Amino acid sequence: MNQKNLLYGRHPVVEALQKGVSLDKVMLQQGIRGEMEKELRHLCKQAGIPLHVVPKDRLKRLTSGNHQGVVAFQALVRYYKLEDVLPTIYERSEVPLFVLLDSVTDVRNFGAIARTAEVCGAHALVVPQKNTALINAEAMKTSAGALNILPVCRESSLMAAVEYLQMSGVQVLASDLQAEVPLQDLDLKLPTAFVLGAEGEGISEPIARRADQRFIIPQLGQTDSLNVSVAAGMMLYESMRQRVM
Amino acid sequence: MNQKNLLYGRHPVVEALQKGVSLDKVMLQQGIRGEMEKELRHLCKQAGIPLHVVPKDRLKRLTSGNHQGVVAFQALVRYYKLEDVLPTIYERSEVPLFVLLDSVTDVRNFGAIARTAEVCGAHALVVPQKNTALINAEAMKTSAGALNILPVCRESSLMAAVEYLQMSGVQVLASDLQAEVPLQDLDLKLPTAFVLGAEGEGISEPIARRADQRFIIPQLGQTDSLNVSVAAGMMLYESMRQRVM
Repeated sequence: MNQKNLLYGRHPVVEALQKGVSLDKVMLQQGIRGEMEKELRHLCKQAGIPLHVVPKDRLKRLTSGNHQGVVAFQALVRYYKLEDVLPTIYERSEVPLFVLLDSVTDVRNFGAIARTAEVCGAHALVVPQKNTALINAEAMKTSAGALNILPVCRESSLMAAVEYLQMSGVQVLASDLQAEVPLQDLDLKLPTAFVLGAEGEGISEPIARRADQRFIIPQLGQTDSLNVSVAAGMMLYESMRQRVM
Repeated sequence: MNQKNLLYGRHPVVEALQKGVSLDKVMLQQGIRGEMEKELRHLCKQAGIPLHVVPKDRLKRLTSGNHQGVVAFQALVRYYKLEDVLPTIYERSEVPLFVLLDSVTDVRNFGAIARTAEVCGAHALVVPQKNTALINAEAMKTSAGALNILPVCRESSLMAAVEYLQMSGVQVLASDLQAEVPLQDLDLKLPTAFVLGAEGEGISEPIARRADQRFIIPQLGQTDSLNVSVAAGMMLYESMRQRVM
């Protein structure tokens, strides 16, 4: 962990939260109770920042400074909220295009998807607060600058994000090796959010069930195994193809 | 370097060459002349295996065994020749689809492209003898098994391979950020070979000039930087889309 990105001590962390500094997560020492704990919980919840309760040893390994039971990790990107991003897209008369990442924890895949999404005109990546790739230096590098441009929306629940998008007129499409509708038969000129799952496991079943449509990328080989960032590239290319033509 | 893959000594290496064992390369100690040198040069040339003349120290670092000035690296895949692969595709009444890699030296990109090419029904990868990714354990792993299925054709000259393909009725298509024809306007139901270049540098100019068509993957973002394996995925998806529909 890069020590430059570390904030510690009660006052500095609370102040960062109050000022809206972009944080990846806050760590609170086990057993700490009282006003400070309540305030931290409240501020983190309000800002959509994950709060982890951890043993004292964990904090000690992170810093030799006087952390007072609180350590925060400054983020390399600013996080957005979907509800702030979506209206501005409609106001610009653009057709929304989102990429939702369900349990994509590999930082290189995350960076590669960001890079492709930016090139293909997607408006944002949407990630959950937990079970997602840390946006570290390697993710930034793999994104080839895209993570400095493309907004990343961090949502407390990916399911709630799916429902919010659907209520806002955005179709949610889930890739699924068992589906029958091929990618090219989808109407991608409509407001669209693609959901991508982790390699191997795919999209979690509740999210896949909630999607408006499941689709398959047609495959001709003996194996059926596409890398998640390559699969993302095919979906985003197909949407670009339909929208540009 | 994995010592398991090493062969050394004059007789073992010559025997491997005579038996057609798949080798990545042969290293010959500087200053060695005579019948052995001639035979090695002849056998390597015949089999299309790169022969490198290297200082004695280089061989000493590779093995403590009695190498007699000759070391060979056994390959993890069997290499094919384009002239053996292409006719069998036509005989099966299939429409050829190749991916030519011009100076793609990154082993992960190489493995990822192999993986996607296999899924998308490509018939083979085509690589030059030099300035190409070593097919090592990491390339094999990144390919997720595809390199055990998809033939890799190793050609002494990529330009000669391009010309051979063109004479055999295969259109050679080169991606180029300056081109005007978009990917989706190509007729990919024809016998096709895509040429991919290294990230950054792109395809070498003589090869790009020799291609039947240069094309661009349309891009909507602020950056114009696609990862080479993602770009390959888009091309192979587009060819699959046109051929399946």
